Amino acid sequence: MPDKVNLTEKFALFSEQWSPKIVGQVNDVHIKIGKIQGEFLWHSHENEDEMFMVIDGRMTLRFRDKDVVVNPGEFIVVPRGVEHMPVAETETQLMMIEPVSTVNTGAEDTDRTVVPETI
Amino acid sequence: MPDKVNLTEKFALFSEQWSPKIVGQVNDVHIKIGKIQGEFLWHSHENEDEMFMVIDGRMTLRFRDKDVVVNPGEFIVVPRGVEHMPVAETETQLMMIEPVSTVNTGAEDTDRTVVPETI
Repeated sequence: MPDKVNLTEKFALFSEQWSPKIVGQVNDVHIKIGKIQGEFLWHSHENEDEMFMVIDGRMTLRFRDKDVVVNPGEFIVVPRGVEHMPVAETETQLMMIEPVSTVNTGAEDTDRTVVPETI
Repeated sequence: MPDKVNLTEKFALFSEQWSPKIVGQVNDVHIKIGKIQGEFLWHSHENEDEMFMVIDGRMTLRFRDKDVVVNPGEFIVVPRGVEHMPVAETETQLMMIEPVSTVNTGAEDTDRTVVPETI
């Protein structure tokens, strides 16, 4: 039977950054959380839209033609195919909604590519 | 190009309760927000899982065999086929993640069935 998920409790279970964790699923999308700090890399997802919601901290989402600053209580949906780079000055907690097929680095297979675990 | 969504600004755009609004889409799921107070009705969704996250207030999600109290910073995923009834003592703000095919009253076609608009 369904039980609730407390985000603060889930964030306390890991410390590594840039390593999304699966905390739920709704049909074909995962609900993930992650901690980020510093710069990620330019990438895009061929078939997946991606929603980023800031839970704590502040994220700047860089696009090729603009930056969008996302604060707690705000989210942004990056459509498939759009290049983006998440950046955070201080450690920032995110919730993401994205298809189960989503790879964190998109089409780039790098040493920052991770297979998300469920927590 | 993508722009961010501020939940406080979106909640300020409507006052009606039990009338979910679409504020985003990720592939085949909608991101919705809604205001609830009082009791809804027993229903289930045949093919759709449904995620409820409390943004402000408190929701009790009734199941046939237990109640789950969901507070801000917490969410719950109701799997398809599971009967549930959302209840809130005071006005409560929710964010929902659910397939675009989801009808708010599930298989029940009642005077509380609504077609969500995008805001």
